[in-house]
Amino acid sequence: MAAPNCVFCKIVAGKIPCLRVYEDPSVLAFLDIGPLAEGHLLVIPKDHAERLEDMPTDILAHLVRQLPPLARAVLKVTATDSYNLLQNNGKTSGQEVPHVHFHIIPRKAADGLGYRWLASSYPAGRGEEIRRQLVAALA
Amino acid sequence: MAAPNCVFCKIVAGKIPCLRVYEDPSVLAFLDIGPLAEGHLLVIPKDHAERLEDMPTDILAHLVRQLPPLARAVLKVTATDSYNLLQNNGKTSGQEVPHVHFHIIPRKAADGLGYRWLASSYPAGRGEEIRRQLVAALA
Repeated sequence: MAAPNCVFCKIVAGKIPCLRVYEDPSVLAFLDIGPLAEGHLLVIPKDHAERLEDMPTDILAHLVRQLPPLARAVLKVTATDSYNLLQNNGKTSGQEVPHVHFHIIPRKAADGLGYRWLASSYPAGRGEEIRRQLVAALA
Repeated sequence: MAAPNCVFCKIVAGKIPCLRVYEDPSVLAFLDIGPLAEGHLLVIPKDHAERLEDMPTDILAHLVRQLPPLARAVLKVTATDSYNLLQNNGKTSGQEVPHVHFHIIPRKAADGLGYRWLASSYPAGRGEEIRRQLVAALA
């Protein structure tokens, strides 16, 4: 199902052009038009879903099975050996188009890309408390 | 199968402690010990695989099916509505432990986290050229 005014739904429908790399009945992969690096790919479900948690899990599993061959193709074409797989959910995460998309971003040394790795640590007991809350939330 | 000297294989085997949040026969989720935010989770296959492309696709599909409920639990416990799903492959990508791991990183406004979004664009014809090469690499 397409959502009105969704850019990616319009790309799926062919109403907005894209550089298509792979397509099957439920998944589309195309070049990001504002790439972080040459070969930066977007992989999306054809049916509209805003976030990872909104996707039917069968479609999600099928989409993810396409990622390894797509990543291998990106590595080959860009002559790189590394990439980030990134998928943002929610405005605060940096998600700009509210239609699930996986980024495959090939990486080269000193390219200035990557995640801002501001690591911290848990005060004594806090990690265990968070763990307990997470287990309870999953129950 | 475990790899010798792999920290995550040792965690799977219980030889190194962790704060376990979820476990099934092929997948383990636990708190990152150097979290970027409270509730920062790592989700890994129990069998050793260095990169996404090395994983048996059935295990990959199974792992990814666990991500939505885990993400929902993280959002609930951390009272956030956004998160990044990140998975790094290769040293240049920032992968520090050579055992596949998916990061679920909950996000809050002005937390200083996120991907360095240095977008560019393709010169005329270059995107189509890359697209053609990718399609050929997939064939």
